[in-house]
Amino acid sequence: MMNYEDVMNLAGRRGYFFRSAESYANTPAGFWDYGPLGVLFRNRYIDLWRRRIVKFDEMVEIDAAQIMPRDVFVASGHLTNFSDPIVECSNCHSIYRADKLIEEKAGHIVPEGLKDSEYDSLLTENNVVCAKCKQPLSGTKRFNMMFRVGIGPLGEEAYLRPETCQGIFVDVPFLFKTQRIKLPKGFAQFGKSFRNEIAPRQGILRQREFYQAEIEVLFNPERADLPRFDVALDYQLSVAQGDVEPSPVKVADAITSGVIPNKLIGYYLYLVQSFYQGLGIPKSAIRLRKLTEQERAFYSKVAFDLEVMTSVGWLELVACNYRSDYDLRRHAEVSKTDFSVEDEGSKVLPHIFELSMGVDRSLYALLENAYRTEGERTYLALKPNVAPVQVGVFPLMSKEGLPEEARKVYESLREAFEVLYDEGGSIGRRYARADEAGVPFCITIDQDTLGEGTVTVRERDSKLQDRVKVQELPSWLGSRLH
Amino acid sequence: MMNYEDVMNLAGRRGYFFRSAESYANTPAGFWDYGPLGVLFRNRYIDLWRRRIVKFDEMVEIDAAQIMPRDVFVASGHLTNFSDPIVECSNCHSIYRADKLIEEKAGHIVPEGLKDSEYDSLLTENNVVCAKCKQPLSGTKRFNMMFRVGIGPLGEEAYLRPETCQGIFVDVPFLFKTQRIKLPKGFAQFGKSFRNEIAPRQGILRQREFYQAEIEVLFNPERADLPRFDVALDYQLSVAQGDVEPSPVKVADAITSGVIPNKLIGYYLYLVQSFYQGLGIPKSAIRLRKLTEQERAFYSKVAFDLEVMTSVGWLELVACNYRSDYDLRRHAEVSKTDFSVEDEGSKVLPHIFELSMGVDRSLYALLENAYRTEGERTYLALKPNVAPVQVGVFPLMSKEGLPEEARKVYESLREAFEVLYDEGGSIGRRYARADEAGVPFCITIDQDTLGEGTVTVRERDSKLQDRVKVQELPSWLGSRLH
Repeated sequence: MMNYEDVMNLAGRRGYFFRSAESYANTPAGFWDYGPLGVLFRNRYIDLWRRRIVKFDEMVEIDAAQIMPRDVFVASGHLTNFSDPIVECSNCHSIYRADKLIEEKAGHIVPEGLKDSEYDSLLTENNVVCAKCKQPLSGTKRFNMMFRVGIGPLGEEAYLRPETCQGIFVDVPFLFKTQRIKLPKGFAQFGKSFRNEIAPRQGILRQREFYQAEIEVLFNPERADLPRFDVALDYQLSVAQGDVEPSPVKVADAITSGVIPNKLIGYYLYLVQSFYQGLGIPKSAIRLRKLTEQERAFYSKVAFDLEVMTSVGWLELVACNYRSDYDLRRHAEVSKTDFSVEDEGSKVLPHIFELSMGVDRSLYALLENAYRTEGERTYLALKPNVAPVQVGVFPLMSKEGLPEEARKVYESLREAFEVLYDEGGSIGRRYARADEAGVPFCITIDQDTLGEGTVTVRERDSKLQDRVKVQELPSWLGSRLH
Repeated sequence: MMNYEDVMNLAGRRGYFFRSAESYANTPAGFWDYGPLGVLFRNRYIDLWRRRIVKFDEMVEIDAAQIMPRDVFVASGHLTNFSDPIVECSNCHSIYRADKLIEEKAGHIVPEGLKDSEYDSLLTENNVVCAKCKQPLSGTKRFNMMFRVGIGPLGEEAYLRPETCQGIFVDVPFLFKTQRIKLPKGFAQFGKSFRNEIAPRQGILRQREFYQAEIEVLFNPERADLPRFDVALDYQLSVAQGDVEPSPVKVADAITSGVIPNKLIGYYLYLVQSFYQGLGIPKSAIRLRKLTEQERAFYSKVAFDLEVMTSVGWLELVACNYRSDYDLRRHAEVSKTDFSVEDEGSKVLPHIFELSMGVDRSLYALLENAYRTEGERTYLALKPNVAPVQVGVFPLMSKEGLPEEARKVYESLREAFEVLYDEGGSIGRRYARADEAGVPFCITIDQDTLGEGTVTVRERDSKLQDRVKVQELPSWLGSRLH
């Protein structure tokens, strides 16, 4: 049975992703780099996100600065609320997350969001001491998880954004003034966010610097049941109420039973679930877990986590959150700017439904979902639409004009496709490398190519081989790479 | 005559780019957001960079973390050298860049890179006082332009990278270990960099947070004259030796005369100059200015700035710099890791030739280069290959079934093209909006569309109109959008 380590070993040795600056011994945890395959893989994921969600729904995409001034986070609440409870050893000054330390000692989950005094009680009850030197700990303190930066020589207070969406929120007045936008409208953004985790231990699944692809749908709460959302009514969502297996429920029925408040939310949940299915995650491995009131932020009206079953358990990939008018109301208050917009002749402060995707962990989930072993063979059964490299081209031997002919085939394909040329080692070793890179089709150039103008194409998952004419390769591949 | 303000006004009102978080009154200068047209525009630029340089030359692209540990910048030299000279008012504590303040008073350029004592002498000579309260200034001090961040609760010292290339350099050992790479090889990266400018006053042309697209070509200095670079030998580079008009010189001749040290550098200068020409910048507005020894870093063997003539003068878009083995040698020393690689059977510490593109200012230069006025009309004559929106679809009137027919045309095109649908206002106003967005082709649906199945297509620059069958639109447009 494959696990996180297996997947990350393959990701490392094939150059999907690896720890940042690992030549340096003291590089802090929580930072990762994308290698050549990783960049191609991520670009495919983002390209599909753009085509199947952003462009499909006629959203607009923006790209805002990552450093934002203090007042933005006064408004968002991050400055006061975005913190982890910590304790410090009175002797060796090691610092721990209070909840994690209690969990380790007590052997059970400690809820997030308790008060400092509640953590203090749990620390005492469980006789928690420093994990290193066994001496007493301080009382619970707060550590804000935003990275602070100082602007200019006076060090004006600013922060690296902890979520991309704040960049969308603050641009709302400007975007409505300059763009011809009607509610409801989705605003999309792909980019880096930053969270200063105390001790990130979950590898690529919890980083201090990470990619998000966020969508903020602005709508008039009086008009969330528009006819255009009807296309989703018969779609079966995999809803789970609590930490249970999902059961399929039609969007229409989920609205009737009150699981989902309106058609708009049903439609966007359909878009996001079908997006992940379209990337190759089976429906049975997806759930939309409805959050309880305790799990939700106070301003949130309803929230679902899209989770995928992995070797580390159900893994949250997308937070789907009905944020009410909280964000725009707060930015309006603090910036003293009007954030209301025109809708059907009246002014309204839009409500927001958010689809917040974790990009890095989505890519991890896709890799794990595609990871296969078969005897000695390891391969990634990635759907061709997300495979970073689409085609391998190999001369059968490095002689008799085969490399020259193979280069010709490579050159004829590489503008339209992402192609790998490989003439190193036995053909078996080249297949093995391509398998681990998830290359769906490999083309071998042999003597018959020179004679008849045909090549062997081997399909990755089935290992079945087909004989295809060189001049028909573009259309043969084109029809199979969706 | 158009100027920077005209271009930025258009960029703002059409949503190319605009000041970040401008709802907040106190947002510091030097941060910009990309709006919907800006994101599409930048994506086209990067897509062409990937296809015409990165993929064309079989480079590999990586994407490294933006936050890097202290030791990386010990090695690179940024921790000690990447600073501006500043002076502080003894009375009101305003802070200024020493060189800029002297320039304003003295009325002439002050060289960069002087010693603190030299700035002090110039301050005294020119009787420079505080620009605000006219009181005496402190002596020259140093302000490091990197943004410092603290990692974890102990605030471990780290910095936002001031250039993307450091992420490539530190990954070299890992990339050569895991990837099948032979010298010479280009490594590419697109992403954000950060410089804490003291008082950025040049708008989008000098930001504190900005995009770079950097290429680091690693090569064995013994083998920089490979036959594969011969394709560039007859290409005419626009070389300027000093602040003069460029004169065309063939790559081969520039090598012979010693202006360029080898074929490898000639080849990459050819790639970068032809890239900008391919984006629509005329050859006459491009120069490769060879830097003098004083302008170059001490480790640099030769350097050219690719500059484009704009309303603000010659604007540097790409720094082309032969960095010797400085970077890898320094990272090897500080990290105590072997950075040498195999080449033709022996170990070599690669030399580096760099093409460092400023993305935001390249996009500005493209906009300015395309800016046209013609009576009341303002339009962007962007080459179709970089135009953010490729096609506009307009029903002639909002009645008689024309909008429905126009939506059908729109739906049939929008998967393959970036299409704008617009039925708001007169057809003239819609053309005007499309002109300012640089849309190369606008399609009008009229009564004859319903009858004969044809539409009017209007070409942006010539305003010439053509009558095209609806079913032929994809191929008609496809052949014109390169």
